[in-house]
Amino acid sequence: MDVVPSQLPHREFYNILISAVVPRPIAWVSSLSASGQPNLAPFSFFNAVCAKPPLLAFAPGMRAARKSGVVRGEPGGEPKDTLRNIRETGEFVINVVPYELGEAMNLTSGEYDATIDEFDLAKVGSAPSKVVRPPRVAESPVSFECKLYQILDFNPDPEGGSLVIGEIVSVHIDERNLKEGRLDRNSLDLIGRMGGMQYTRTTERFEMVRPKVE
Amino acid sequence: MDVVPSQLPHREFYNILISAVVPRPIAWVSSLSASGQPNLAPFSFFNAVCAKPPLLAFAPGMRAARKSGVVRGEPGGEPKDTLRNIRETGEFVINVVPYELGEAMNLTSGEYDATIDEFDLAKVGSAPSKVVRPPRVAESPVSFECKLYQILDFNPDPEGGSLVIGEIVSVHIDERNLKEGRLDRNSLDLIGRMGGMQYTRTTERFEMVRPKVE
Repeated sequence: MDVVPSQLPHREFYNILISAVVPRPIAWVSSLSASGQPNLAPFSFFNAVCAKPPLLAFAPGMRAARKSGVVRGEPGGEPKDTLRNIRETGEFVINVVPYELGEAMNLTSGEYDATIDEFDLAKVGSAPSKVVRPPRVAESPVSFECKLYQILDFNPDPEGGSLVIGEIVSVHIDERNLKEGRLDRNSLDLIGRMGGMQYTRTTERFEMVRPKVE
Repeated sequence: MDVVPSQLPHREFYNILISAVVPRPIAWVSSLSASGQPNLAPFSFFNAVCAKPPLLAFAPGMRAARKSGVVRGEPGGEPKDTLRNIRETGEFVINVVPYELGEAMNLTSGEYDATIDEFDLAKVGSAPSKVVRPPRVAESPVSFECKLYQILDFNPDPEGGSLVIGEIVSVHIDERNLKEGRLDRNSLDLIGRMGGMQYTRTTERFEMVRPKVE
């Protein structure tokens, strides 16, 4: 079957996209508004982009339409708090999400009023960052402190989105995830986002050695 | 422990990045050179970016240095064939990778000479695309035909990288992965990239319902 995105209902194409581009890593993004109000929210259109300069990127969509009086479940044309905060302050922290923090992360995925502090809501600790003002999630094994590098805006209409590229200025690694002074990747137990309501664990790992080319 | 990326050896920071930003989806990218030579290569700095416009992005690094006479295993300042092809032609296809295509995908990850056709090398079939010239991988359950939307270049030096953003113009879904005319996400069995030589299966899935906000 061949389909053209623009000829499908928005939700139907969106479902193909989030079902076939998997497993997605999760950026649990902490930020502060200009007035200092903390925010914490997960994004799975997220990945590493470059090692030098050290760049991460995530793509927030628009808020769901509930607050705009449009059809519930469709995008509603208002930027998410995270994006607004980053435009205002230029700083954020990307925390990674192990299985044991999954429920707390999920709690912060609701589209709450900007006055809600999701650290309190999800009962996770906030710890001061080294370089940027927004705090990191204290329980996250790895946190990337970022300064805004670039924002791309794709579409001004209510269904559009943006790509936020951040330059990593400091990385926090929990001591319990170190082995001989380096990050022990096998200790992380991170989860990934799948389509619908699904997540995946990363416990069923296997290795493939890259072919040598002479 | 807190580390500053620029104060670590390149490989050490790269290892933190690829170990902590996981699980990463895999873009198996098919492209053609200006003269029509096929290329197929995997990239895991990859994700969906936006549903409307329908955008995917992946970030190719530089080729390893073997061919540039620099230290083996370090980036070598030459663009990968995929990036050069996309600059030349503006078209590519992103195929997804189920477990059963893992070995074939891994075979195409070597940095072969541009004259090598990785479809032949990995013994995968090529099928004509609907809209773009590069073929899709015949055995892949979902293929996204893309036209180049934008390329961002981050660093002209040998360790730099680029972000390739493609607009999806057509999606192919294998009939065997349809259920009542729609993509059956539970039929896909896709794999994700972890750090080092590791991959993960997506078989250990669980669900979490997003919180309702009144």
